[in-house]
Amino acid sequence: MMLKLLALCLFTFLIYVPIAEARIRHYKWEVKYEYKSPDCYKKLVITINGKSPGPTILAQEGDTVIVEVTNKLLLENLAIHWHGIRQIGTPWSDGTEGVTQCPVVPGDTFKYEFKVDRAGTYLYHAHYGMQRESGLYGSIRVSVPDNFTEPFAYDYDRSIILTDWYHKSTYEQATGLSSIPFVWVGEPQSLLIQGKGKFNCSSASLTADTCNTSNPECSPYAITIIPGKTYRLRVASLTALSALSFQIEGHNMTVVEADGHYVEPFVVKNLFIYSGETYSVLIKADQDPSRNYWMTTNVVSRPPNTTQGLGFLNYYPNHPRRSPPTVPPAGPIWNDTAPRLAQSLAIKAHHDFIVTPPTTSDRAIVFLNTQNRINGYVHWSVNNVSFTLPHTPYLIALKNRLHHVFSQTPPPEGYDFVNYDIYNVSKNPNATTSNAIYRLGFNTTVDIILQNANTMIC
Amino acid sequence: MMLKLLALCLFTFLIYVPIAEARIRHYKWEVKYEYKSPDCYKKLVITINGKSPGPTILAQEGDTVIVEVTNKLLLENLAIHWHGIRQIGTPWSDGTEGVTQCPVVPGDTFKYEFKVDRAGTYLYHAHYGMQRESGLYGSIRVSVPDNFTEPFAYDYDRSIILTDWYHKSTYEQATGLSSIPFVWVGEPQSLLIQGKGKFNCSSASLTADTCNTSNPECSPYAITIIPGKTYRLRVASLTALSALSFQIEGHNMTVVEADGHYVEPFVVKNLFIYSGETYSVLIKADQDPSRNYWMTTNVVSRPPNTTQGLGFLNYYPNHPRRSPPTVPPAGPIWNDTAPRLAQSLAIKAHHDFIVTPPTTSDRAIVFLNTQNRINGYVHWSVNNVSFTLPHTPYLIALKNRLHHVFSQTPPPEGYDFVNYDIYNVSKNPNATTSNAIYRLGFNTTVDIILQNANTMIC
Repeated sequence: MMLKLLALCLFTFLIYVPIAEARIRHYKWEVKYEYKSPDCYKKLVITINGKSPGPTILAQEGDTVIVEVTNKLLLENLAIHWHGIRQIGTPWSDGTEGVTQCPVVPGDTFKYEFKVDRAGTYLYHAHYGMQRESGLYGSIRVSVPDNFTEPFAYDYDRSIILTDWYHKSTYEQATGLSSIPFVWVGEPQSLLIQGKGKFNCSSASLTADTCNTSNPECSPYAITIIPGKTYRLRVASLTALSALSFQIEGHNMTVVEADGHYVEPFVVKNLFIYSGETYSVLIKADQDPSRNYWMTTNVVSRPPNTTQGLGFLNYYPNHPRRSPPTVPPAGPIWNDTAPRLAQSLAIKAHHDFIVTPPTTSDRAIVFLNTQNRINGYVHWSVNNVSFTLPHTPYLIALKNRLHHVFSQTPPPEGYDFVNYDIYNVSKNPNATTSNAIYRLGFNTTVDIILQNANTMIC
Repeated sequence: MMLKLLALCLFTFLIYVPIAEARIRHYKWEVKYEYKSPDCYKKLVITINGKSPGPTILAQEGDTVIVEVTNKLLLENLAIHWHGIRQIGTPWSDGTEGVTQCPVVPGDTFKYEFKVDRAGTYLYHAHYGMQRESGLYGSIRVSVPDNFTEPFAYDYDRSIILTDWYHKSTYEQATGLSSIPFVWVGEPQSLLIQGKGKFNCSSASLTADTCNTSNPECSPYAITIIPGKTYRLRVASLTALSALSFQIEGHNMTVVEADGHYVEPFVVKNLFIYSGETYSVLIKADQDPSRNYWMTTNVVSRPPNTTQGLGFLNYYPNHPRRSPPTVPPAGPIWNDTAPRLAQSLAIKAHHDFIVTPPTTSDRAIVFLNTQNRINGYVHWSVNNVSFTLPHTPYLIALKNRLHHVFSQTPPPEGYDFVNYDIYNVSKNPNATTSNAIYRLGFNTTVDIILQNANTMIC
């Protein structure tokens, strides 16, 4: 008995002893297909340890993250990319199939190991086919070192990911996209907040087994807050198609971080967010604590054909499933570009964290992004070249100096941007495919200019 | 002009010159997902060079078949098994994923190369997950050597494969089968004859885009025959679930080959066929040549909940899509076992081709097949052990003497068959899983006895 008590005390001590030096954060994940109803419509979802989104990775700057991923999918390979992590010294762990690794085959376990060298808000997601759109994604939250004070204060920290959601399998979507005739995926059926949405099951002739709005799996995601406290809400988007606005009824949001960098704080009612982006916003729990409030997401920049996504800001101790007494706030007008431009212009590095960009560059590369038709198939291209993956990952080819793996003819560095009129894009039948790469000189500065043609004709 | 004529003559000569020695039959296949409507219902189908079933492999005994398979599936690996081919000297080409090879990853090409050392009717099909049920299968027809006379005569040779067909993807089916609670796949939606069926699109609320009975992709498969001629029809089954009967209206069938072996001829009206089996039957085009006749398949041994499969025996020169003026012949009563037993008893090796079985054996192994529950999951087992694949294929492990790849504890050689009552099967909660193998002594004779428990309780 004494021994047990002693062991318990020792154990408690071990748990609570503060550790200043870098730690190892070890995760073991099983990835598989399961039937889930994220928006009340039942379909196959890729889960990590039974969940989609997967577990949030919590680490501190300087820690080493180890994720042992076991592929329990039945036929599909996989790879997981750690979006925003620089992988300095660990390129093999970047998780980009065909670039840094072969895919992980069913039954196998792959060990990702990398250092999180910068505090901030990041993401992970599948990087194989369209598996990300099947639910294989999650948040990475890297806290600052112990002795570091952030340029803003808050009481609690929360992460949510916004996505759009399709009812067709990604197989069906991908087959349509790579078919003649081209079959477009269409607008998403739902918008999810942290993996939860609400499809209108009565809109299609669906059985209750397939679509049931009272299924607890699709009850709105709720963030519980304590009145008077300030929350840092880390908001990320991993949509397949949609540009989104995000708003919280009755609460302003102060933007303090963008893509892992501190910014000069600015206040928004609607946060515009595009796929792959992350923001931290501060919210104060300063409204009527006797009720809950809506969180909503809306499609912008395309005519919205998808019901808005709904979640709850839950004032403790109200029930987290209690609907707010109000109508969910509508998003901004989808084609009003002014507030989006204003947000982009408002984003400036925080004055204590300015990294001055180089004033000159050694090289400039201009990318024109267009939609083309190649051998009858629709392909997106950069400078008229559509990318294909080689059969051997680049990193392996480069390390082993294998010259037959991919084309050694460099892709074009630009296009005729003097004469090209993006408002009057002509047909572009001469596109080609290539697996060639741009090789950059070590420690050189490269100026990359991206131009998206506003119309796409092929 | 003279040169062209000369070239043409030379070319013609090269085509028609008879070649006696063994040839190489070289195939290049691209495997991919495509939207097809084999039974009028549109879904993703795995095709070979755009077709399902894939091309029929035609070869002569002694030939070498080379199939270069390129995996153009988007995320899925694959492997193709050559069902009935002995692979003497070429075990790496057997195409059983996890046993003889690693799966072929998307983008890669795998070269199968093997000798077809016995004339007969064989099959090929996917051997990875449930891809076979997505349409990845076809016929292999190996003709006899030039100097060989078969024990029956016919004018023409035709191959058809019978399958059952599900509208859910094999992903959905496989996920249900490997879930808690267990979700059974149910009865198939259609029966296909050489990849063609006819689902009753009006039975479910389906749009014409999804299900359209006038889609030419699902017009019944027709075998065109010339009046007065005799046809060797090579019939195979690759159903997922169903035992089938096959019949041709107004035509008897004379069975002459079973699973690649000549048999004493016997006449049937209904040919019973189970998954993986092949038969050759002779039919005489001796009926009214002014009309077509029905070919039908029906489910037997389970209560049939699937409409019969329909095809046409097309008397030349009638139109191959002209429906017979009659009602398709119904199959036999599903639970009448007498004619099935009679067929099994009728199958005897042809008297000129008897291979006498050994009179003694060096070892006997008895297999009891049951359905069990292991950790809550439903598994099928042999002698209470459910098979799992190791991460490294057996052939690689054995060749390299890797002892850590799979369990070295041999699986059980039998069960308590003296006391086991298959008509009163008790619950069986003690099943386990194992990846161990039975090791057989080279050139020994092993007597294997299979016992299927007639009820399955878990």
